[in-house]
Amino acid sequence: MSVTAAKGFVAAGVKAHIRKDKKDVALVRSLARATGAAMWTQNRVQAAPVVVSKQHLELAQPQAVVINSGVANAATGEQGVADAIATAEHVATKLGLEPAEVLVLSTGVIGAPLPLERVLAGVDAAAAQLAAEGGTEAAEAILTTDTHAKEAVFHGAGFTVGGMAKGSGMIHPNLATMLAVVTTDYPLHPGEAIQFLQPAVDASFNSISVDGECSTNDAVVLLSSGAAQVERSPAADEAFSLGVRTVCADLAQQVVADGEGATLLAEITVTGAANAAEARAIAQRIATSSLVKTALFGRDANWGRVLAAAGSAPFNGGYAQLVPELVSLSYNGTPVLVAGAPQNVEPPVEGGVCTIALDLGLGEGAAEYLTSDLSYDYVRINAEYRS
Amino acid sequence: MSVTAAKGFVAAGVKAHIRKDKKDVALVRSLARATGAAMWTQNRVQAAPVVVSKQHLELAQPQAVVINSGVANAATGEQGVADAIATAEHVATKLGLEPAEVLVLSTGVIGAPLPLERVLAGVDAAAAQLAAEGGTEAAEAILTTDTHAKEAVFHGAGFTVGGMAKGSGMIHPNLATMLAVVTTDYPLHPGEAIQFLQPAVDASFNSISVDGECSTNDAVVLLSSGAAQVERSPAADEAFSLGVRTVCADLAQQVVADGEGATLLAEITVTGAANAAEARAIAQRIATSSLVKTALFGRDANWGRVLAAAGSAPFNGGYAQLVPELVSLSYNGTPVLVAGAPQNVEPPVEGGVCTIALDLGLGEGAAEYLTSDLSYDYVRINAEYRS
Repeated sequence: MSVTAAKGFVAAGVKAHIRKDKKDVALVRSLARATGAAMWTQNRVQAAPVVVSKQHLELAQPQAVVINSGVANAATGEQGVADAIATAEHVATKLGLEPAEVLVLSTGVIGAPLPLERVLAGVDAAAAQLAAEGGTEAAEAILTTDTHAKEAVFHGAGFTVGGMAKGSGMIHPNLATMLAVVTTDYPLHPGEAIQFLQPAVDASFNSISVDGECSTNDAVVLLSSGAAQVERSPAADEAFSLGVRTVCADLAQQVVADGEGATLLAEITVTGAANAAEARAIAQRIATSSLVKTALFGRDANWGRVLAAAGSAPFNGGYAQLVPELVSLSYNGTPVLVAGAPQNVEPPVEGGVCTIALDLGLGEGAAEYLTSDLSYDYVRINAEYRS
Repeated sequence: MSVTAAKGFVAAGVKAHIRKDKKDVALVRSLARATGAAMWTQNRVQAAPVVVSKQHLELAQPQAVVINSGVANAATGEQGVADAIATAEHVATKLGLEPAEVLVLSTGVIGAPLPLERVLAGVDAAAAQLAAEGGTEAAEAILTTDTHAKEAVFHGAGFTVGGMAKGSGMIHPNLATMLAVVTTDYPLHPGEAIQFLQPAVDASFNSISVDGECSTNDAVVLLSSGAAQVERSPAADEAFSLGVRTVCADLAQQVVADGEGATLLAEITVTGAANAAEARAIAQRIATSSLVKTALFGRDANWGRVLAAAGSAPFNGGYAQLVPELVSLSYNGTPVLVAGAPQNVEPPVEGGVCTIALDLGLGEGAAEYLTSDLSYDYVRINAEYRS
């Protein structure tokens, strides 16, 4: 019920036969006049629905979001753009909206044509089922290799923020999600939503990696129905901001924990970097290291791999600053390296979570990153994805 | 016999009980006064033997190279440096050289202390066995997860270039190798070797990736005994340059083909990029994409993944230029995308080699890259490496 937890939203998820016997078309709509914003993948290759939805956002405030899974409608040329437009127009007709008030999102195989007739039939079915109880079915309809739906809710003083996300592979900035829709009844003026969405996304979906792959379809949408009876104030805004950040962080963590083949969630903290940007570069390099991630799968610290990754973090055409003699590293609270001196201990790596804390001893730069391990199942899922 | 194929070199490889029942100490020496050069990993974390060998190269022309496998002597603090110096001094004493004339290379687990006594005993045994027939044994003694030794020879007009390399995981610029020793009898003056080594390395070891990991220990050494009776001339220099490039390219290809768990060698060609640097960034991004590499393992083109990777190639703080409408892509000669239009064909991906050719239609920038697929065995090898 997450995406319909806030007042004024209805949703549905239906089977449109794009994916074999699974729900694959979701519809989310605000019943009141909504305001909203979205953030998109920075990939140079942007799927047709991303191209079309960006144009729509420039023309109108979004009132509804339609999502299909199974086919990404990316690298589909002019036909793909026409199909995305046709989808938005169909939704608009069904719901009595302008086409520009509809955002279209797709996720699935890249390069395959969108089966438009099935999508439109799915829209018809979903529109007929729109309900305040439909949030979970919508969350199910947007999944691909995910093993379960991802939902989150935050109840503030007089308002609610709820959201759904999908994502399991192709998870990496910018933007790692792949798709998320966050709704709220907190009242926002047009143009305000992005001010709350951006910092929440930077600290959540832009700080996770499953496989270092940036999707062509990533999108995070924030919609406000304004239906909550709450007075705007700086304090209320701050509480709402916390709500958006909490929901995004919750969804982002669920995405990584459900990363393709993941058996472990790794929380990487970098402190003492020369600056925040270099801290982030180093955290990201560790989070994407195949050797670090396979060692975690083997529940083996083999911490030299973390150090080797940290020492080769791309930054400004070279590598981020790191002085080996100043570096300290700990696993799950156990120091393995202190100011460059190995401690000759085997830290515990067991269970489903591992914290890796690297202090560079250089400055005040800090960053956090979430990642998963790299397992046989990641290879199996992605070698067999289309089989 | 590759590293001893050129006149004036002897080598040996022995078991020193650093690795279980495998050869693990190699020694290569020039019998005449040699000249030489080396290139090193650019990782900020540099192993003790790299630190020590760089200092030696500033003081003297290298006459011998000692290599141990099993322990990388990286992230080992002051003791690691002392151990690398002690190893060089021991070799120097045995061979009647100055310590600065000895280069020390190590490869293996990062963060574990070097078992110095075993290394020194191995040096004693290797020094006693040095022979012109010892090249292959030396090539065997430098391996870690490699499944076989890597050797290459080029016979020029009156001179020879030979080389050995090890490398299977942690293969990525700069410098992806992990270790290579190239020898020649072509006469070089002090300071000249680097002029021939650098372009050969850029086109070979710096254009391959197995797993996107940059090692702490990478090194490529070129030694010339000057023993060939050949007149220097611009034409002879050009022939020698070709020889060095050929040997490095041969070794680099062997490294990728023997990449950890590799079942397929992928040759990635990028043309039509805005410039050479962006072409290289895009080629490297494709070569390191987990989704591209798992699809190759599954013998499934799933070419949208190549496009998604190409569109998110880090360059100058953003992504390299790419205009989807101009992009053409082919697999093994079969076009799947022509100027942005999908061709709706399934290209053949079978056997042990796959060529992926991407043309961006933007400019004259071109680059080539070699990579391997990502298989279950990569995960197994690296999850179990220390078990």
